[in-house]
Amino acid sequence: MAAPPSLLQDSLAQIAADIDQEFDGLLKLPGDARDRLYAAMRHAAIGGGKRLRPLLVTATAALFHVDRAVALRVGTAVEAIHVYSLVHDDLPCMDDDDMRRGKPTVHRAFDDATAVLAGDSLHALAFEILANPQTHGDPFVRGELVSTLALASGPEGMAGGQMMDIEAEKSTFDLQTVMRLQALKTGALIAASVEMGAILGHIPAEGRTHLRGYARDIGLAFQIADDILDVEGDPELAGKALQKDAAANKGTFVSLMGLERAKQQAEMLVQQANDHLSNYGAEADLLRAIANYITERDR
Amino acid sequence: MAAPPSLLQDSLAQIAADIDQEFDGLLKLPGDARDRLYAAMRHAAIGGGKRLRPLLVTATAALFHVDRAVALRVGTAVEAIHVYSLVHDDLPCMDDDDMRRGKPTVHRAFDDATAVLAGDSLHALAFEILANPQTHGDPFVRGELVSTLALASGPEGMAGGQMMDIEAEKSTFDLQTVMRLQALKTGALIAASVEMGAILGHIPAEGRTHLRGYARDIGLAFQIADDILDVEGDPELAGKALQKDAAANKGTFVSLMGLERAKQQAEMLVQQANDHLSNYGAEADLLRAIANYITERDR
Repeated sequence: MAAPPSLLQDSLAQIAADIDQEFDGLLKLPGDARDRLYAAMRHAAIGGGKRLRPLLVTATAALFHVDRAVALRVGTAVEAIHVYSLVHDDLPCMDDDDMRRGKPTVHRAFDDATAVLAGDSLHALAFEILANPQTHGDPFVRGELVSTLALASGPEGMAGGQMMDIEAEKSTFDLQTVMRLQALKTGALIAASVEMGAILGHIPAEGRTHLRGYARDIGLAFQIADDILDVEGDPELAGKALQKDAAANKGTFVSLMGLERAKQQAEMLVQQANDHLSNYGAEADLLRAIANYITERDR
Repeated sequence: MAAPPSLLQDSLAQIAADIDQEFDGLLKLPGDARDRLYAAMRHAAIGGGKRLRPLLVTATAALFHVDRAVALRVGTAVEAIHVYSLVHDDLPCMDDDDMRRGKPTVHRAFDDATAVLAGDSLHALAFEILANPQTHGDPFVRGELVSTLALASGPEGMAGGQMMDIEAEKSTFDLQTVMRLQALKTGALIAASVEMGAILGHIPAEGRTHLRGYARDIGLAFQIADDILDVEGDPELAGKALQKDAAANKGTFVSLMGLERAKQQAEMLVQQANDHLSNYGAEADLLRAIANYITERDR
């Protein structure tokens, strides 16, 4: 049963406006020699981006009737981690990208040193938000949130995946290694977003099995769709350079499976993700719409 | 009343061995394409360094009879933040340093991208340690630890000070601005180390006034001593390049106050730091010895 298309579109528009507002409130210029740092953080964090991770936090939290303001703050923390990783990933010594979210990357708009520090600062900000009693009154919940995000973003998660991604340019990885790489590089943070929504809903770890399955499947589908977009997408719409993987001769889902099989695989994963939600009724329609959106998006 | 010199020397040797052991346990090579990342983290984190911040955590925690193993884990988290900041600070786009703690810097021993990721990974590791229930059983304490460290290391603390430091090369700061810069760049994390020891001791915020005064004074004394060492020190002993501030024409305590007045100021701050400990007996002798060491050290 498909959700009305407006549910997804409205939710995407709403979360984009809300996350911009959260960052705007958090990143007021201090009016001293740190202004350049805050300006760089604002450049990176405000305006643009699909805000998929915060949407996953709020959509999952909504299943359990969590106060939206609380879920939004947690979503902002996850997005701060995502944005910091993009800022560092775009650096000349990493992917050396000039455009991101339709704007010059931070090191192009400012300079490399400011980009390093802006990324580091957004990284710290994420944990500051989660540990703040104003974000959530229950210290157990705050601790679980910090733990989940730190694990998902560190060497056991995102940063570990980025390292594998760098190594992928040196040797050709097989499909299994690419799956592992992507599970860490993008999958871990997407899974953490869903997990954190469930934590806010006071769902114990053993009650999160289906949501974890959903998150794992959409995470992998997301990355396959990204590889497809890298080949077929419009750089104008994507707001960043494309076809970089082929140029770097990197093993991707498309190069390893072929375009058609990659598309089938992504579709199958979306179907599987939706199957994990079969215990839920209409309250999970937004999560279903997000799963469908992942392979249908053009950016 | 001076503590026996062996108290400080023994404590420094002990904390160095303990922190190396903690990092060694945390950073086992995973045996996959992330090995290079873990090797870089180990290169940065194990071997060398005064371990002043973990020593401040354990020495303060010992005032309140905190289990040393717990204080050590928290000290390791603070040191992980310190080490990540050194790794990023040494990058070519930042200070461009070749040597650190008597070894090649991470980007020299590995490469720039690995150094960025190793720094990011140590950053995440710090919060992973603090949020882990095995570090401390009380979630309130864990939350306060995360909050304190995130604030001290982010744009309101260390990263903000690093940004000011970069701006200092463009314009000449007056003494007041340099004091503010250093209070953020190095002072915030030193203060957080003492604060986290007190948090482990379940000392409420209003009971930490004297310890905060102590921390603020040694933090400033530490930076003045660093500026003096930059002029007078032996690069061999320091394990890094010196006289960089004068070359960059940066305002330092020495350039703004003159060498003699800077030395007097550092001595006065150490005296003042010790005065803040007058409510404590022999149990604070190690904190006193640390304060004295700060201006007497040769590296």
